[in-house]
Amino acid sequence: MSRIQLAQGSGGRENQQLIRDLFLKYFSNPILAQLDDAAVVECGTTAVSTDTFTVHPLEFAGGDIGKLAIAGTTNDVAMRAACPEYLSVGFIIEEGLETELLERIVASMSSELQVTGARIITGDTKVVPRGAVDRLMINTTGFGAVRADCSVKRIVPGDHILISGPIAEHGACIYAAREEIAIAGLTSDCQSLWPAVKALLDHEVPIHAMRDATRGGLAAVLNEWAEQSSTRLMMTEEVIPISEAVRGFTEILGIDPYILACEGAFLLSLPAENSSEAIDILHRCGHPDAVLIGQVENADNGPQVILTSAYGTQRLLDFPYGEILPRIC
Amino acid sequence: MSRIQLAQGSGGRENQQLIRDLFLKYFSNPILAQLDDAAVVECGTTAVSTDTFTVHPLEFAGGDIGKLAIAGTTNDVAMRAACPEYLSVGFIIEEGLETELLERIVASMSSELQVTGARIITGDTKVVPRGAVDRLMINTTGFGAVRADCSVKRIVPGDHILISGPIAEHGACIYAAREEIAIAGLTSDCQSLWPAVKALLDHEVPIHAMRDATRGGLAAVLNEWAEQSSTRLMMTEEVIPISEAVRGFTEILGIDPYILACEGAFLLSLPAENSSEAIDILHRCGHPDAVLIGQVENADNGPQVILTSAYGTQRLLDFPYGEILPRIC
Repeated sequence: MSRIQLAQGSGGRENQQLIRDLFLKYFSNPILAQLDDAAVVECGTTAVSTDTFTVHPLEFAGGDIGKLAIAGTTNDVAMRAACPEYLSVGFIIEEGLETELLERIVASMSSELQVTGARIITGDTKVVPRGAVDRLMINTTGFGAVRADCSVKRIVPGDHILISGPIAEHGACIYAAREEIAIAGLTSDCQSLWPAVKALLDHEVPIHAMRDATRGGLAAVLNEWAEQSSTRLMMTEEVIPISEAVRGFTEILGIDPYILACEGAFLLSLPAENSSEAIDILHRCGHPDAVLIGQVENADNGPQVILTSAYGTQRLLDFPYGEILPRIC
Repeated sequence: MSRIQLAQGSGGRENQQLIRDLFLKYFSNPILAQLDDAAVVECGTTAVSTDTFTVHPLEFAGGDIGKLAIAGTTNDVAMRAACPEYLSVGFIIEEGLETELLERIVASMSSELQVTGARIITGDTKVVPRGAVDRLMINTTGFGAVRADCSVKRIVPGDHILISGPIAEHGACIYAAREEIAIAGLTSDCQSLWPAVKALLDHEVPIHAMRDATRGGLAAVLNEWAEQSSTRLMMTEEVIPISEAVRGFTEILGIDPYILACEGAFLLSLPAENSSEAIDILHRCGHPDAVLIGQVENADNGPQVILTSAYGTQRLLDFPYGEILPRIC
């Protein structure tokens, strides 16, 4: 009998297959087929995104499931160049959860809402018997007004690819917490990205696409972009920002930092002539490590992501396969 | 140390307290404070509702978690006199779930979507390790265009209260399945209510409020209505429709049918002069048991729900307290 495997929820290749073979098969419609993390409806005026947060542990360096549930969903809306205005929230709580912990998490959600000004407008609470859920999971669904046309479909050869900050921070932090490895400086980058996106839109930077590199990390987003825009992405490995703590951690454990999740860093694809302006704006609004990391080319040999090392050697950055790290977000 | 209890998610009094003392404390804003099951935003044009479905067992007589996840959320949108147009869906799947079962549930969602024409426009899939969730939970968030102003705040003395069909069908069906009691005719009433609401709106019936009587059943909705509209609701017990199977089941087990969930019956409050037209319309569109069951009066002694029996005796129908039946929806 066929059974669902962890890898089918990982953000990698098997996850894509489950979506294509099952969900798109039954729910197919033009809006769902947009392929971005948020859908745009109502004649292009409203962006909508949903996410269920199952992160373990519930509290970690740099955040908690509540902060993640607000930032994660508003970020998906922001990545469609939309202002996150409204959120619904659904709590699934295991009987016996400490009320004080729940209150800390709710307070953390409230505080993260201040960053974007988004408001929770409707909610649902389920309390389930012990064992039916591991402590607490939270679904948030966000929506808001689209300010510019920003979608993976607009990525074209010649575009520059930027990243707003160091990668793999969230993934490394959760991994270390899970394995009880103490490394100084491993902190989740979990944060709301709308202020940065708003600054770019206010300056009328003509962004083609944006995506926060969550489950599956940089490797998943770049491969999705290459496939969905039928392009080849040429990335310069040595300029991809990675903190010393994350580099040390991933080297010791032999993990590829490119497949570890970010929760506060996003990729941008935009015309080459606008990339230095965009970097300047990001530097000025709390993203000092924003940098040009690659460019988009014609896909002569099919969609590909190529990493060029400091020594000039090239390798293929593949789609993540298998179980990466469950319950990362 | 204070811990969350099952009763805090029951749809009864303790559930209301948790919402008031914790969620409204941190998330307070005028839209969230609307108190209906769906919020209305964007200058009154869009209704939004969210629900996480945790029902156990996943499949039951008359439906499954998928049908429930579509009907339940579109019903909450419909209860605000809004056409359910768009849905997001978030799956939380336990590693090892039978793929075939998941496909049956997804197909059932797809088929229930046909009833209203609503479309799934964005989604999220989490697969969690064994034990982190019991098999499958589904969040759906729905929204759509508001066609009339319909809210608990519009209930006024003089209104008639109708119910669209027999009560407690879903609750009794799940209860029996959980306890492995086989009673012929116990079938969930799980269904999408938008077609009935649409028929009423098409005939311009001036409905004041609607609510499907889910968690906490008739007792919860009527008490919420009385409190939120500061009225006294006078209900005629003998006309409240209850099927023979449900009556037999609840009498044998000594359960109050008024606190058991419906998933396909809704209450309406509307001007007395429009009630017979509304009943006729409901009879013609698949709700042959729709009936007038009470009326709204001034709350001289504070908000109350009074049941008058066939013998003319009166009793207070109180808010459900304690753990009713966890994982009912």
